[in-house]
Amino acid sequence: MAKRMGENTIKFSTPPKLIAGYSIVGPKEGQSPLAKYFDYILKCDRFNEKTYELAERKMLEQAISGAIDKANVLATDINLLLSGDLLNQIISASFCARQLQTAFIGVFGACSTMTESLALGACLIDGECADRVACATCSHFSTAERQFRFPLELGCQRPPTSQWTVTGAGCSILAREGEGHKITHAIFGKVIDLGINDMNNMGAAMAPAAADTLKNFFVDTKSKPSDFDLIATGDLGKLGSEIFIDLMENFGYKMAENYADCGQMVYSSKQKSFMGGSGCGCSASIMNSYILSKLDSGEYKKVILMSTGALVSTTSTQQGESIPGVAHAVVVEKGR
Amino acid sequence: MAKRMGENTIKFSTPPKLIAGYSIVGPKEGQSPLAKYFDYILKCDRFNEKTYELAERKMLEQAISGAIDKANVLATDINLLLSGDLLNQIISASFCARQLQTAFIGVFGACSTMTESLALGACLIDGECADRVACATCSHFSTAERQFRFPLELGCQRPPTSQWTVTGAGCSILAREGEGHKITHAIFGKVIDLGINDMNNMGAAMAPAAADTLKNFFVDTKSKPSDFDLIATGDLGKLGSEIFIDLMENFGYKMAENYADCGQMVYSSKQKSFMGGSGCGCSASIMNSYILSKLDSGEYKKVILMSTGALVSTTSTQQGESIPGVAHAVVVEKGR
Repeated sequence: MAKRMGENTIKFSTPPKLIAGYSIVGPKEGQSPLAKYFDYILKCDRFNEKTYELAERKMLEQAISGAIDKANVLATDINLLLSGDLLNQIISASFCARQLQTAFIGVFGACSTMTESLALGACLIDGECADRVACATCSHFSTAERQFRFPLELGCQRPPTSQWTVTGAGCSILAREGEGHKITHAIFGKVIDLGINDMNNMGAAMAPAAADTLKNFFVDTKSKPSDFDLIATGDLGKLGSEIFIDLMENFGYKMAENYADCGQMVYSSKQKSFMGGSGCGCSASIMNSYILSKLDSGEYKKVILMSTGALVSTTSTQQGESIPGVAHAVVVEKGR
Repeated sequence: MAKRMGENTIKFSTPPKLIAGYSIVGPKEGQSPLAKYFDYILKCDRFNEKTYELAERKMLEQAISGAIDKANVLATDINLLLSGDLLNQIISASFCARQLQTAFIGVFGACSTMTESLALGACLIDGECADRVACATCSHFSTAERQFRFPLELGCQRPPTSQWTVTGAGCSILAREGEGHKITHAIFGKVIDLGINDMNNMGAAMAPAAADTLKNFFVDTKSKPSDFDLIATGDLGKLGSEIFIDLMENFGYKMAENYADCGQMVYSSKQKSFMGGSGCGCSASIMNSYILSKLDSGEYKKVILMSTGALVSTTSTQQGESIPGVAHAVVVEKGR
């Protein structure tokens, strides 16, 4: 049964298990230092499809079916699919759900979708509303770029604070029974907006929300950064991470070497990606490859994953709005 | 504790309570036969704001604060806001959450958002992940029209199968303790697509999903249409409802006079709205006004609300995709 701790944190007394994860990434991500951890690397970012949107959807489909396969269950054993993505009206997730024929809960948290779906899925399993759920998300550089910024054909110059949307997808299967790592805590974040309005500086827009969520978690659970082997944010990027570390220090928490940002891990410094990776697929693919593998090997025993989202649309930007951020987190403990 | 019944239905043994609801609608909806049930009717659909998007957001804000006020709790007593809307990247809900300073779970189910958030909220309360949640959504004719179809200034002719997006918002407060109507069951629907690809015939696109969800609910719970005082679909409209009734008959269930569609209830036959109302705000405003009031008075004792969503974006339509539908349902029993 779940127990609310402090103001915001949810603790699961019988933690739901993360029984399998699958990751798939594009060719650029396949050249990253973490390449060997990914389950599948695309040769071409069109994935033999007519449009980038179809390629993105196909990655999500493969992530979900791959994770179901690794979990050694049938697709019909999955009670719910919790999924969302960056595209307008989350079409990647919705059209993917059409194929899967599982009840579908569409979520939207921009790049925070991986932990939004993991946290929600864990709550639903803990409350016995579901036995097994699939939590999945994806993003694609080319669909995001042309939807949020400029047509690819324009070849616009990218400002130094920009991040590179990860082409990738990840899916985790959560279950009440079975062998797997334990989701022990979840925390849903507040929407925080300190007034950043630059679509090419998402890290700065998301950092305040990330700091708020993590600070609340530490206060609620009376824990501290050194209690964890890894604290991973979603896609703050280089600049966003620095702001996040500063904000945490203001709250009295010193982030040390166990802190990492998936956005900075996903590309090497030689790959031109400015501040690093971003997109729903960033933390989704890193969680379901590198982090899972380190939990499997025992190098990590206790991990906080906190995906971060910038809640922005082209309409809100064109109407002069600033960019609010949100960050949801889960604690994963080694369990197999 | 929740119990899974059959394949899809969730039964709450200690049902979460719907302790308050608030509805707000635009001027056109204010001329409907149900006008006296709404809490607030706008005089102007711009709601004194510079843009229609800001007006939509302001309606949602008023619905949420109105419902919190009616529930006689403080905003800080609300643990979670579950909300989404039709706009790209659900900006109405996200920006609204920024004001409220409550943890935020962004959901997307197109026009099925009201029951998606009610069903999820009930699961979270039942599982003790939250004590009190706000479930809210909104839509606006002018923001939806210009995002999904044509600029308003074009004055395009509307085809006879089209529906009119409701300008309105609704919010329900769910709680574990307190006096209120009981959410006894929830069912999340599958994404169903029978190949409709006409953006102006949403009812036909959503009817198969609605029939699938309701049929599954009846099978899972061994119940039948006559067990309920009202079975309300979200916004199938006139044509969609007829298709839905046909499909239900094929499944062996005869829908009778206790069946109604919020999309057909929201406008009088004299108001030019073709097949009827649609949009997230349609079932949200009817649920939190007319239906709640009939539960209060005792005229209804047991109600199924099933909002229906068409999972479509302009990109998916332009790329030649058909329109998948989804429908989530909750059972509400008189409890005060």
